[in-house]
Amino acid sequence: MNAPKEFVAANAHVDEAAIAPLPRSRKVYLTGSRPDVRVPMREISQSDTLSNSGREKNPPICVYDTSGPYTDPDVHIDIRRGLPALRAAWILERGDTEELAAPSSSYAAARLADPELARLRFDLERTPRRARSGQCVTQMHYARRGIVTPEMEFIAIRENQKLDRYGEQLRRQHPGESFGASLPKEITPEFVRDEVARGRAIIPANINHPESEPMIIGRNFLVKINANIGNSAVSSSIGEEVEKMTWSIRWGGDTVMDLSTGKHIHETREWIVRNAPVPIGTVPIYQALEKVEGRAEELTWEIFRDTLLEQAEQGVDYFTIHAGVRLPFIPMTAGRMTGIVSRGGSIMAKWCLAHHKESFLYTHFEDICEIMAAYDVSFSLGDGLRPGSVYDANDEAQLAELRTLGELTQIAWKHDCQVMIEGPGHVPMHMIRENMDLQLKYCQDAPFYTLGPLTTDIAPGYDHITSAIGAAMIGWYGTAMLCYVTPKEHLGLPDKKDVKDGIIAYKIAAHAADLAKGHPGAQVRDNALSKARFEFRWDDQFNLGLDPDTAKQFHDETLPQDGAKLAHFCSMCGPHFCSMKITQDVRDYARNSGVTEAEALEKGMEQKAEEFLGKGGEIYSKA
Amino acid sequence: MNAPKEFVAANAHVDEAAIAPLPRSRKVYLTGSRPDVRVPMREISQSDTLSNSGREKNPPICVYDTSGPYTDPDVHIDIRRGLPALRAAWILERGDTEELAAPSSSYAAARLADPELARLRFDLERTPRRARSGQCVTQMHYARRGIVTPEMEFIAIRENQKLDRYGEQLRRQHPGESFGASLPKEITPEFVRDEVARGRAIIPANINHPESEPMIIGRNFLVKINANIGNSAVSSSIGEEVEKMTWSIRWGGDTVMDLSTGKHIHETREWIVRNAPVPIGTVPIYQALEKVEGRAEELTWEIFRDTLLEQAEQGVDYFTIHAGVRLPFIPMTAGRMTGIVSRGGSIMAKWCLAHHKESFLYTHFEDICEIMAAYDVSFSLGDGLRPGSVYDANDEAQLAELRTLGELTQIAWKHDCQVMIEGPGHVPMHMIRENMDLQLKYCQDAPFYTLGPLTTDIAPGYDHITSAIGAAMIGWYGTAMLCYVTPKEHLGLPDKKDVKDGIIAYKIAAHAADLAKGHPGAQVRDNALSKARFEFRWDDQFNLGLDPDTAKQFHDETLPQDGAKLAHFCSMCGPHFCSMKITQDVRDYARNSGVTEAEALEKGMEQKAEEFLGKGGEIYSKA
Repeated sequence: MNAPKEFVAANAHVDEAAIAPLPRSRKVYLTGSRPDVRVPMREISQSDTLSNSGREKNPPICVYDTSGPYTDPDVHIDIRRGLPALRAAWILERGDTEELAAPSSSYAAARLADPELARLRFDLERTPRRARSGQCVTQMHYARRGIVTPEMEFIAIRENQKLDRYGEQLRRQHPGESFGASLPKEITPEFVRDEVARGRAIIPANINHPESEPMIIGRNFLVKINANIGNSAVSSSIGEEVEKMTWSIRWGGDTVMDLSTGKHIHETREWIVRNAPVPIGTVPIYQALEKVEGRAEELTWEIFRDTLLEQAEQGVDYFTIHAGVRLPFIPMTAGRMTGIVSRGGSIMAKWCLAHHKESFLYTHFEDICEIMAAYDVSFSLGDGLRPGSVYDANDEAQLAELRTLGELTQIAWKHDCQVMIEGPGHVPMHMIRENMDLQLKYCQDAPFYTLGPLTTDIAPGYDHITSAIGAAMIGWYGTAMLCYVTPKEHLGLPDKKDVKDGIIAYKIAAHAADLAKGHPGAQVRDNALSKARFEFRWDDQFNLGLDPDTAKQFHDETLPQDGAKLAHFCSMCGPHFCSMKITQDVRDYARNSGVTEAEALEKGMEQKAEEFLGKGGEIYSKA
Repeated sequence: MNAPKEFVAANAHVDEAAIAPLPRSRKVYLTGSRPDVRVPMREISQSDTLSNSGREKNPPICVYDTSGPYTDPDVHIDIRRGLPALRAAWILERGDTEELAAPSSSYAAARLADPELARLRFDLERTPRRARSGQCVTQMHYARRGIVTPEMEFIAIRENQKLDRYGEQLRRQHPGESFGASLPKEITPEFVRDEVARGRAIIPANINHPESEPMIIGRNFLVKINANIGNSAVSSSIGEEVEKMTWSIRWGGDTVMDLSTGKHIHETREWIVRNAPVPIGTVPIYQALEKVEGRAEELTWEIFRDTLLEQAEQGVDYFTIHAGVRLPFIPMTAGRMTGIVSRGGSIMAKWCLAHHKESFLYTHFEDICEIMAAYDVSFSLGDGLRPGSVYDANDEAQLAELRTLGELTQIAWKHDCQVMIEGPGHVPMHMIRENMDLQLKYCQDAPFYTLGPLTTDIAPGYDHITSAIGAAMIGWYGTAMLCYVTPKEHLGLPDKKDVKDGIIAYKIAAHAADLAKGHPGAQVRDNALSKARFEFRWDDQFNLGLDPDTAKQFHDETLPQDGAKLAHFCSMCGPHFCSMKITQDVRDYARNSGVTEAEALEKGMEQKAEEFLGKGGEIYSKA
């Protein structure tokens, strides 16, 4: 960490550029059955189409918005105070939790008591909550009992693309091949409940993270993406990590994993969670390892358990737990090209070998479930034996672990714990489908959460692309959430540009998958953007895209003049001739002649041709 | 054009950085059955693996090399003189061509006679060649007569990944699903001949482009990529275009299309062709349109024919001909979201509507075949009605045109002309496969050459990624060549960085497809890179990648110290703990203990565990 002591002062204000609304976008809220179910969306307004027949209005387009209150100019942002506790009332109302006088974790208690840390610490006034004795507080538990929570209603509104309001442009949508899943025409609260009850979707929503806006991960919903952030022993500061989080959600990160491995992990995490409107995930074994100074063999169940309590009470929404790295599977990796590349996997492998014992994550799995259930922390069952190269893809070690994750899923479900399953990694295209099929089979439809997969190993510096290919495909096949990969993968720590590049690549993959699955309404945005493109509404084209800033900047590089944004031509063909313009001319011609386009083209072509030539062969008279 | 008059002086020297060999790469030549069949490859040397048991040599890796003589320090480059005429003797030997006293094209003759153009003109000493009367000089013609040309032998050597010499690391390769094609174990000259004879592959090799190094496009060979360059009315100069060509082939462009639309197209093209070791493609209708000052309706068969002769005698290797844009198909586009987006397609549509006549490209198709056959210019049958948005994908207009391209393929084959078929465009993932299947069916296995396809419309500024996803998939399904898309697509003209970004994205897509198809030897490079990565041979990891410069620069951003390139850790986990290191420790441990890895892990685990702890639980003693 660079300068922890100056942290609070240095971060009293957030970077305005990073939280300003996107161009011509405004935050709108759709209200549910109760006034505190206020679902944020981003509404992108469009300019009118100008043609000979006058102006045509283009409706605003509403898109899913992960950026939270940051992009709402009506909300005062002060990261020292954190975000409003949106879900606090819902959690209280359920009456199944209790406030704790002090942290359950002895580590957390010690940090809290240390006056040296005061200057780093986020000032949280409330104390942690936990399920009352004998109670289960998971969304799955409620779902199985038939209860539709406000979280579920929130999600139903959020997942719908509001076809009725904005969907006029969605004339022709190609029905997707959904590989066995069944997408409903409309997402209802009851559908959300049912999917969660079946274990086919999860709502990561720790009762100690009331600031989070509910979201869902499941293959019958929009494909989600995760962005990783985290400091390491080598570089990065708390302030940078909070900023990376706000930056990640600005561009579309649906969840953020804090993978910090350096000092002050505890305090860094608190700042991130208090300011995060999205679920936060962690890999608790990373912090446990820090507590034993990096000596994996000194890890114990007690240290790990204390870390789970520590993080659960801070509000972490999902934990990656590598409980599938079992002792008998470790020898299966000896012949691999790249051994065990998962950090969590190799920590546990080292522990198992040092003690010649079964992993304590596996032997204590039911104990872990009890903790998860008491806070509603979701499982992300880690793929510690994932392949680190194309050579190692779909090998015995990987598949043995996957089968174990399936067994563990059953155990977690017995406790009403929510579960998703992590997947690879490095897999060539023709072997991707098998990953999805086996995951669904072994893990009984629990949501799949994959890293990429990278479809080749030969492009260090471009692994956001090698992996976006695999991610789009596996998303189409049914993966519910895609863990992003940045251009720095394998090479270094991502900076802000890398984080954005990774997120945009993954938003592309996720959206391409939504289109291919035929997610209702997913194509509205494509259609609106294509219409804007065709009509030379340059600003609309930029603003409807995933990254308006870059699109505008690229256009400016070739045609910087302001007038060029209104020009009915583009730099590719120049002002004299343009293919899109020709088609417009054809349509205009038909319209001017008082016939429908199809008629103009199908009938009386010869006569029209003469008229056309008679007028000079060009119709450039429009505005 | 910025400063044409200074062109020759300004370009007397090429940018040394753009032609220097890549790091630790050297040009090697594999010689065939005759000394003038010298096939260039790029050999990447590797450093030794250092371990407790000593040094282990890592073999050099040979990769396909498109960069031509530029990266050979033994060749003196002078773009005023052009490249050596590698194939001149082969063409002469066949005795079926004749030298022309002057260009057949009246336009070319007029340019040549214009003293004003002398300062712009490339000084070519030889005159153009043409097939003798009654002769056909296409590679398909030779192939069908059972002749294995030197070009075919060159290609066979080039396509083989030399498994015998370098393939020791290829232990486990995943056999690919080849979607109906049959990849041979080894590419022989006879196999090349047979594929060309069947029309399943083409060798674009104009007799007036003897500077080109033979290459092949077909689905039983490595997937190729094309890079587009070209000036337009808005910007760009001749010098920049030549530089873009050398830049494109440096990063892996297999062919280059010159899509210039501005002034001095004729002279620009001459400079490009004379300096190009890769096949050059064009869209002749673009230049024809310039000749009638952009008024499509004034185009005539005579002007077009003269343009074909002009370009064929300059040495263009393939022509995009939009002969499938037939009059009756034009009305089918009226209901589209984005009409006709192909520039060539809309030019012809405009002509057809203006004259209410069938396209002269269609009515004169046999005449065109005769010209193509006389120079061995390959057809690239253009998809003038390709979809410009997801909404328009796979519609009636697109498929009607594709069926027509199938009919035209049969006609071209009657003339022994080589043919490939262009494909879309914008297509969501689940509709990509249909494109490939229908293309193979309608066009009787002629090679497919697709633009992307882009799998979503919502990411202007990132269409190299939206399209690399579709390109990788359609490459796997059987597309033979992928036309790149740069980040500037839809927004502006690509600069050097954009060209490189587009090429790398497409090399990734093509290679991912080769892996998935199970192309023999394709995985050698992935395996070598992964081994280097696992062993912390940082420089080898960079150098084996598609872009060593960027990989090294990314690593330097986090760990700039020279020592870090030798460090057995990376910035992600820091020096204290590293997952790859743990796996290495496990193997080292097994090795030190004198047992095989598998034994160490499977047997006597408990005893080993004690020893391991007794030694301090860590083995960091190696070099």
